[in-house]
Amino acid sequence: MPAQFAFAVEARDGRARAGRLRTPHGEVLTPCFMPVGTKATVKALEPRELTEVGAEMVLGNSYHLYFRPGAEIVAAHGGLHGFMGWKGPILTDSGGFQVFSLAGTRVLREDGVEFSSIYDGSRHLFTPQHIIQIQEALGADLVTCLDHCMPGTAKPADLEAAVERTTRWAAACRRAQRRPDQLLVGIVQGGVDEALRRRAAAELLDLGFAAYAIGGLSVGERTPDMLRMVELLDELLPEERLRYFMGIGDPQGVLDVIARGVDIFDCVLPTRLARTGTALTACGGRLNLRNARFADDLAPLVRGCDCYCCRTFTRAYLRHLVNQKEILAAQLLSLHNVRTLIRLCAEARDAIRAGNLTQYTASVRAKRSLAVGPHQGGFEE
Amino acid sequence: MPAQFAFAVEARDGRARAGRLRTPHGEVLTPCFMPVGTKATVKALEPRELTEVGAEMVLGNSYHLYFRPGAEIVAAHGGLHGFMGWKGPILTDSGGFQVFSLAGTRVLREDGVEFSSIYDGSRHLFTPQHIIQIQEALGADLVTCLDHCMPGTAKPADLEAAVERTTRWAAACRRAQRRPDQLLVGIVQGGVDEALRRRAAAELLDLGFAAYAIGGLSVGERTPDMLRMVELLDELLPEERLRYFMGIGDPQGVLDVIARGVDIFDCVLPTRLARTGTALTACGGRLNLRNARFADDLAPLVRGCDCYCCRTFTRAYLRHLVNQKEILAAQLLSLHNVRTLIRLCAEARDAIRAGNLTQYTASVRAKRSLAVGPHQGGFEE
Repeated sequence: MPAQFAFAVEARDGRARAGRLRTPHGEVLTPCFMPVGTKATVKALEPRELTEVGAEMVLGNSYHLYFRPGAEIVAAHGGLHGFMGWKGPILTDSGGFQVFSLAGTRVLREDGVEFSSIYDGSRHLFTPQHIIQIQEALGADLVTCLDHCMPGTAKPADLEAAVERTTRWAAACRRAQRRPDQLLVGIVQGGVDEALRRRAAAELLDLGFAAYAIGGLSVGERTPDMLRMVELLDELLPEERLRYFMGIGDPQGVLDVIARGVDIFDCVLPTRLARTGTALTACGGRLNLRNARFADDLAPLVRGCDCYCCRTFTRAYLRHLVNQKEILAAQLLSLHNVRTLIRLCAEARDAIRAGNLTQYTASVRAKRSLAVGPHQGGFEE
Repeated sequence: MPAQFAFAVEARDGRARAGRLRTPHGEVLTPCFMPVGTKATVKALEPRELTEVGAEMVLGNSYHLYFRPGAEIVAAHGGLHGFMGWKGPILTDSGGFQVFSLAGTRVLREDGVEFSSIYDGSRHLFTPQHIIQIQEALGADLVTCLDHCMPGTAKPADLEAAVERTTRWAAACRRAQRRPDQLLVGIVQGGVDEALRRRAAAELLDLGFAAYAIGGLSVGERTPDMLRMVELLDELLPEERLRYFMGIGDPQGVLDVIARGVDIFDCVLPTRLARTGTALTACGGRLNLRNARFADDLAPLVRGCDCYCCRTFTRAYLRHLVNQKEILAAQLLSLHNVRTLIRLCAEARDAIRAGNLTQYTASVRAKRSLAVGPHQGGFEE
């Protein structure tokens, strides 16, 4: 691990871990939910509000920032920290996910992938070297390897080819990576195929990364399959290395992966739901504020929540904002939803340190059973 | 003036006045720019941000709030203050402007005006009594009479009829108004016709209001005509009464009406411009952030501005947000634009108290001449 970084697991409870990650831009306590700032903004939230809700590390996206505004403009600000006004740790994803998930024709090559920009259709080649260069210009604390993300439902031969490619690219990223103030994360692919995951993990461990991401999950596979893979990787990945689950943000899923040894994770869910007028609750229930039953509901959005939204406004007011498509609705619900995820992680962290994560998770589940019960009505799947 | 209110002119400089208004929800120092919260939200700004930028009083709109969410729902929150989470003074306009300016067929009746709701096309009758009832339910500190706003470019006979109607409705509002914690504002109409303005003012003075609004200006007439009317009303309206110019928010116009004895004014301009990606500067210049010249501009939006946006972000970042249609662009530019207007008022207030408003206004104008000069390029009309 580069000298400017450190990671230590400080407490264990079953497979769950509570740890501490040191980066050039500050410490992160794990388990940690990272809000997603794809285009150098966590949508509808000011950086000072991210601090207020307890965010410790945020994401940026290499693909989008490469095209708009361009990595050189971000670099001219001293990197993403200066560009987006966020002083804490940042992680950038490599853009591989976007290359393989966004519309457009792709041509896979030995040395990378050719694709069309979603911004103007122009053709581009992303190679591992190129992706590292882009991320060095963006200047995040944690950077990721170019990978080929393929859903677990893909054909075995395709999945295997994607794993081979991901390993080859990971090795090239490892060789290309230079900045001592950046930590490179290797990404384990392999869908929901145990043998492939074992192979992918072994190959990455051979290369030796300071942190490992679990990719290619939470992309349409069944939940038991996803959890089986996380459990497998908990056995395969070194205990002392940081583990990053890519793309999970529903409270139940978050508790599931925390219980299986994941340290950090990200998701657009809290902010995306907010922009559709939906509030998250810690137990995983959702409030659709378009619902007419909130029209004269003078209760706070979520009783007991410590966020500015819940301390200040009523459900009736929030419903009014949502129905009138007021920007403030997106602001307040994003604030609440992100706070909800971050508080859940803080509580889970405390529970791990206290050795009672199982009880904590059970109590959250119990609230959920109650909340979705026939007499509550305030929650939806 | 009701006992819970007080207004005093504390300093004069030429025709300009610096005063202090006491309301049940706190004091307002005048001249005062009031941000507009039509639908119980100053668009893209949290109430705590309004406090941060120095807002003292905000507007709500009776027409829109009557239809959505409905006055009774606002009343159930103890009024607009509780509903929108703004603890300071609020003024509601009567909805007359919306009835006469929004699309739909209107039928003028002796006792009011029949119109179609822009929300669902349903037919409604607004009478002076009804408008007062709505505003009593909304619970603002300052409330306004139902008036017939007609642009100065209208036919003389129509203008005269509108003045007669406005006086008749003002008398009815005066009789209907009951709440001791609300101050009713009479509205002077009459377009840009001096005789009509004199008549309108005289009739309202006969009825006797604690505050007077100047309506029907800033709606398409020439600026010299507008200013002539403001000067006339400065002579006609009692010195000790609060004066409200309805709808002015460009920095130059604001200084023009302050210099002619206006105390309070409102406008959607700062927040509306923000949502189109345009920043205001104190001297009246505008920055269109879509402009490519800002793409790599690392300067703050406006050098020397004390707002969170200017303290934290670069023009290049703001341009990126605007171009990517990020909500944060509207948030940050609204914050800056409202702060700009409010700081302008605070500086004008200080200048009036120091007896040097003319010099202050000249210095702002000089900055503007400089700013729009051929070598600056950073400003547009």
